[in-house]
Amino acid sequence: MEVHLEEAKAILATTPSSITKLLDGLPEVWIDCREAPGTFSPRDVLGHLIYGEQVDWIPRARIILEQGESRPFDPFDRAGFQQFIAGKSVDELLATFSALRKENLKTLDALKLQPAMLDRTGTHPALGRVTLGQLIATWAVHDLGHIAQIVRVMSRRYRDAVGPWRAYLPILDIPSGNS
Amino acid sequence: MEVHLEEAKAILATTPSSITKLLDGLPEVWIDCREAPGTFSPRDVLGHLIYGEQVDWIPRARIILEQGESRPFDPFDRAGFQQFIAGKSVDELLATFSALRKENLKTLDALKLQPAMLDRTGTHPALGRVTLGQLIATWAVHDLGHIAQIVRVMSRRYRDAVGPWRAYLPILDIPSGNS
Repeated sequence: MEVHLEEAKAILATTPSSITKLLDGLPEVWIDCREAPGTFSPRDVLGHLIYGEQVDWIPRARIILEQGESRPFDPFDRAGFQQFIAGKSVDELLATFSALRKENLKTLDALKLQPAMLDRTGTHPALGRVTLGQLIATWAVHDLGHIAQIVRVMSRRYRDAVGPWRAYLPILDIPSGNS
Repeated sequence: MEVHLEEAKAILATTPSSITKLLDGLPEVWIDCREAPGTFSPRDVLGHLIYGEQVDWIPRARIILEQGESRPFDPFDRAGFQQFIAGKSVDELLATFSALRKENLKTLDALKLQPAMLDRTGTHPALGRVTLGQLIATWAVHDLGHIAQIVRVMSRRYRDAVGPWRAYLPILDIPSGNS
């Protein structure tokens, strides 16, 4: 199926509060755990989502609308958030993500996208031709993927603690990684 | 690592509000979507979590503490919630889950579990000998697994809509299923 703008926006609008409820008030052991060295902790995921709001989604939508395929998107550094999150509390990061997302959804509304505009095309530096509709669907699925990552990374701490129940908990055997 | 009671309770306490934020106010297309016939929709997951609060976790903890290995747990029907959720709104189901979880955490506190008691054993009808600590770790990981399932099932609706970005969204290629 194709992306449906209002449906996708409903996801984008709920993600900050979903992640806030997931992480807010949890012991830091859950916030900073990771599956393996070099993979994202829940805190890192939050940084990565913030960085996407700052430099990725809306700038790419604008490039598609203003320059089409002629101007490839800037590559996105998946770990470009490191400096930004250093020394910040989880509360600060959650507030920043929520504020940026709210602002970006306002910007998206201001673009007054009509269904036909979702077929407009741009150039991804690695993937080639993509449409604005695909970008918006990806933005929403990217949120969902990182929520899944947060809970997967957290669950991994108890992979041994569950004992024989591991056989019934497939989340414990999803391959680790940075998404 | 072993389960840590307070850490696990922190997860158990946040799950109802996390899932509420994830689902509350979303268009019904997201609430009722499923990966394939016979698999859980987000609404079904909520029913399954409610049923676990009603008949699974606390009753099993009590069996371990009161009867040990001599009395195997009752088998848990993963789809035993169907009748309960029929005709109920998502808001009602979210409220029921939140209320039951709150009550069960009070019951858990009332058991005044000491670390040594987490080694007490019971008999799972299929898995054999399990400990109370494993039961509690499983309760928390089970929550996380079903949050991951909800977002995975939702993301699957846009598996095609993301176009070439699918290569960067591994959540779209996790095998489907009822957990």
